[in-house]
Formats: sequence, C-alpha cells, structure tokens
Amino acid sequence: MSPPFPLPAPMRRALDLASAAECAGEVPVGAVVTRDGQIVGEGENRNRRDCDPTAHAEIVAMRAAAARLGDFRLTGCDLWVTLEPCPMCAGAISHARIARLFYGASDAKGGAIEQGPRLFTQPQCLHRPEVYGGIGETEASTLLKDFFAARR
Amino acid sequence: MSPPFPLPAPMRRALDLASAAECAGEVPVGAVVTRDGQIVGEGENRNRRDCDPTAHAEIVAMRAAAARLGDFRLTGCDLWVTLEPCPMCAGAISHARIARLFYGASDAKGGAIEQGPRLFTQPQCLHRPEVYGGIGETEASTLLKDFFAARR
Repeated sequence: MSPPFPLPAPMRRALDLASAAECAGEVPVGAVVTRDGQIVGEGENRNRRDCDPTAHAEIVAMRAAAARLGDFRLTGCDLWVTLEPCPMCAGAISHARIARLFYGASDAKGGAIEQGPRLFTQPQCLHRPEVYGGIGETEASTLLKDFFAARR
Repeated sequence: MSPPFPLPAPMRRALDLASAAECAGEVPVGAVVTRDGQIVGEGENRNRRDCDPTAHAEIVAMRAAAARLGDFRLTGCDLWVTLEPCPMCAGAISHARIARLFYGASDAKGGAIEQGPRLFTQPQCLHRPEVYGGIGETEASTLLKDFFAARR
C-alpha cells in the first residue's frame, strides 16, 4: 500500500542505501543525517565488510556527519533510518544530540525506541529526540523480510 | 583503599589509557579487549579529538580488536573498561558477542549494566556476557571525580 504522501527525500535515500547494503550481503538498513534539509552524512550496514560490530547504518551515518561538521555533537540535525534503532544506536543518537529521529519499520526483536528498553523514556536518558516512526515502513520491512527469507 | 589482590594487567592498562584520555582533555575512560589473556584491541575516549559521538573507550577498543581479528564478532574475547558501560556501549558489547565484561567504577548517571535499563537483563537481549564490576573501581572513580571537579 502506498503512503498518502510522497516519501521525504532523505528516507528515499536511506531506502536506496538499504538496498545497496543488501547487494553487498549486509542486513538491508540505511540511514542519513540531515541539517537544514541537506544530507550531511549517510551510511548503510557495514558489519561484515568492515569487520566492525558497531557498523550499523545509523552509527556509520552519524560518524560521517560528525566528521564532516567537525563536531562530536550533531545538535540540530535529524536522523532518517529505515529500521527502528537498537539500544546501541539509540544510545548513540542520544549522545549525538540528534533533534529528530525518523524511522521506517518497527523492530519487535531488536528495537529500543518503542520496544524493549524504550531508551528515550528511561529517567537516565539525557537527550531525547522527537520521534516519528512508520515512514517508508512498507518498503523498509519488505527489504528486510526478503533478505532474511532468502537466507533461511 | 587498596584491593586485596593485584589489579589484573588488562585493567591496569585500561586505567593507563583513561589517564591518557584525561591528558588529552577527554573524559578519562579506558578499555581493552583481550583474547586468551592477550590484548587484541585498546581504546580511550576520543569524542572530542575525533569529532565522533560514538568514540567511547569501549567502542574504540572493540572496533580495533574486530579489525585486527578480521571478524565483526569478538566471540571468546573479554572487555575490560574503567567505567560501567552506557546503553550505546552495552548494546555494542552484546552485538560483538563479548564473553566477559570486567568494569571498574559504577555509573549511577549513565550506566546501563546495573543501573537504568539494565540492558543485559532485557528479554530482547540476544547475548549477555558474564559481568564482573568493581575491578579497579577506586582508581577509576578518582580519575573521573578529579576530571569533573577541575572543570566545575
């Protein structure tokens, strides 16, 4: 089912990055960081290629944006990612002071935003972004389902 | 108060890395990854130097170890860190399949192991290391207290 509005361009780009990850044999998740509507960092899952347990799309995108902007805090930046972030990525989003988080598919097994530890609702959490889920959800979850179905 | 046994060498090294971070103006936390008793990766906080919101000591050490070992999973490896890991680092520890986590000082404000979300106790958590806290705690917490006192 098509959404009732065109996908925002950053999520379109994140979905394309997720497809690129799939072609490289990685779990298909993509992410971009924007500031004032412009992309300042992007990433796709690179765990296997980079031999890096932390190389989720969100981490790769935030590291790229921070390096480009020359600041370890991404204050005023937004993160767009095709899958609900895990605890590692949710923690990094908070450390980076991301203003708004837009994500696609929910992740009942690994998500940490609306599932499991719900990290941004923890009293300890020092910075909570605004959160908007379900953007590009159908395409994002289809990519993931097809990926895991092909490997079963 | 001195501990009733000599500090294990990997925690001694992690404390030295924490001191090095402090000299560089970073929050003094250090970490090392060992396999079969040998150090295969080390790290200290590098957020400011590297303009990287994810560059906590644990992440730096695990990325270094994974690159060196050529595997995104650090199965059978141990992580030694001077401070209780935050949610980001606890999530990365789980992704990396770290076998045993040894840490120094507890972190009431930011820790995610015995405080706050207690990530390894969450039903979602796919891999839980064995956890040993309080190792080198006095020296680790003194480093941190002195660092923050000097900046107030």
